[in-house]
Amino acid sequence: MRRVTPRIAVGPLQPAYAVAAVEAGGGQVVNPDGKADGLIWLAPRQVDALHDALEATGARWVQLPLAGVERFHEAGLFSAGPQWTSAKGSYAEPVAEHAVMLALAGLRVLPTRITATSWGKPDGISLYDRDVVILGAGGITAELLRLLAPWRVRATVVRRRPDPVEGAAATVGLERLDEVLAPAQVVFLALALTPQTRGVIAAPQLAAMRPDAWLVNVARGPHVDTDALVAALDSGAIGGAALDVTDPEPLPDGHPLWGRANCIITPHTADTQAMVEPLLARRISTNVRRFAAGEQLEGLVDIEAGY
Amino acid sequence: MRRVTPRIAVGPLQPAYAVAAVEAGGGQVVNPDGKADGLIWLAPRQVDALHDALEATGARWVQLPLAGVERFHEAGLFSAGPQWTSAKGSYAEPVAEHAVMLALAGLRVLPTRITATSWGKPDGISLYDRDVVILGAGGITAELLRLLAPWRVRATVVRRRPDPVEGAAATVGLERLDEVLAPAQVVFLALALTPQTRGVIAAPQLAAMRPDAWLVNVARGPHVDTDALVAALDSGAIGGAALDVTDPEPLPDGHPLWGRANCIITPHTADTQAMVEPLLARRISTNVRRFAAGEQLEGLVDIEAGY
Repeated sequence: MRRVTPRIAVGPLQPAYAVAAVEAGGGQVVNPDGKADGLIWLAPRQVDALHDALEATGARWVQLPLAGVERFHEAGLFSAGPQWTSAKGSYAEPVAEHAVMLALAGLRVLPTRITATSWGKPDGISLYDRDVVILGAGGITAELLRLLAPWRVRATVVRRRPDPVEGAAATVGLERLDEVLAPAQVVFLALALTPQTRGVIAAPQLAAMRPDAWLVNVARGPHVDTDALVAALDSGAIGGAALDVTDPEPLPDGHPLWGRANCIITPHTADTQAMVEPLLARRISTNVRRFAAGEQLEGLVDIEAGY
Repeated sequence: MRRVTPRIAVGPLQPAYAVAAVEAGGGQVVNPDGKADGLIWLAPRQVDALHDALEATGARWVQLPLAGVERFHEAGLFSAGPQWTSAKGSYAEPVAEHAVMLALAGLRVLPTRITATSWGKPDGISLYDRDVVILGAGGITAELLRLLAPWRVRATVVRRRPDPVEGAAATVGLERLDEVLAPAQVVFLALALTPQTRGVIAAPQLAAMRPDAWLVNVARGPHVDTDALVAALDSGAIGGAALDVTDPEPLPDGHPLWGRANCIITPHTADTQAMVEPLLARRISTNVRRFAAGEQLEGLVDIEAGY
């Protein structure tokens, strides 16, 4: 029989926002080294310690702190018994905002402006009434479509299965990616990293893009073949790339992507800790309450798909 | 009796888009050195030549190519007989887009990112659910409110007369500017330049702003007291300034606003010629059609107010 007040382990540390969120959801906070019903795991890189916490707590539910959980998937954790939930969808707003900012800054040649020390010449492309392509159909894409709606963009969403997406002019399967890239002024990457989506933007895709199109990546660095991207930027095959994620990441000093007029790099900062905490807290308290009530959890990881 | 096909002088040059727009509106294009019913004047700096064209054509209506017509006002042209229309409202979309881009780029520390040659630390402020202040209540403000609506900003519009503005949480008169600045994350300048609005942002207003607020100017340089702005940026009184217009303009080489992490300068390029031509063409053909039909023209200049 389900307890009214579930014991929720929080670890490896117990920041105040997470403790408050568990309590707001009706849970009792415990340490991750003893028995617990659920486990809120806040360290995105500590896979081994999570393994230990899973064994110690015997938790039937684990909440992860990120939307992109490929690290846990690759470590084989998702084959274990508990239900897994991620933060997917909950950071959509700041990430979509960052994507819009990167697209507009690229189209309006901000690297040239910001490095100028002299008045320049008019230049720039407006986003109104343009075609855009968005890879992925999760929370970021939904929010991106909402933010871009006033610009009257015609958005084509590319996803695994071509089920229609609200607010998109068209939705197609990943196998049709190359043919839909041609008219896009901006190509946004907002999809999960899986073996199928690694390198989804490589030389053929870059060649299919408009010479004035910008590529905006707020997903994961390995979605893009970095060598092919550098070649495309060198040759002018595309207008530019604005990347919040890179491969390798962090981008090493001296890498050819630094310091270019046709490339904007932000250091994986679409969603800062300050932006994320209130959103993760909301996800945690919702899921603690649902877990206690035996209801379906938010952000359930699809174990097969790996995200 | 009004002619069915009005004679519309186009000058000083007759670019194809303007000729096509006059003809689309049902007008006959003539040169500006002989009699004409209307005059489309496309040279924003040639005030004397416009004076000559006015005399030669005897035009009863003059269409100007800009939204900001203070140069013509200051030259005393608006006291003459014809109806005057400007481009006001018609370039609102690209200018509002540029303002959104500047605000997001500032809040997300893009000058630091773009000049980096090394991976940086997370930083930045999100615009969701923030207070903003917009000075002016014309077409740019209406469009800015439309673009910002998905961000759920609480917008206070500051204008000459505090008539309510659709989409704004509050509208106040210019005399209440200082008191509404305090909570604003972004202060947008989108107002006309008149003797009353020259220097509307000076030391007291900058002091009233949040230390993390950004000032975005897409109106006219002299709205801002440049020396006071430099002092505010030096002392960290505000988060930063993103300026598409400056005073002086062009901003001279070596000016202290160049090359700062807390300042973005774009060279009066919110609306490039390529963005503007189709919008001005639409204004021209609409007004030629309305002029021929004796209907009220779009973008009528308020002779008293000077815009």
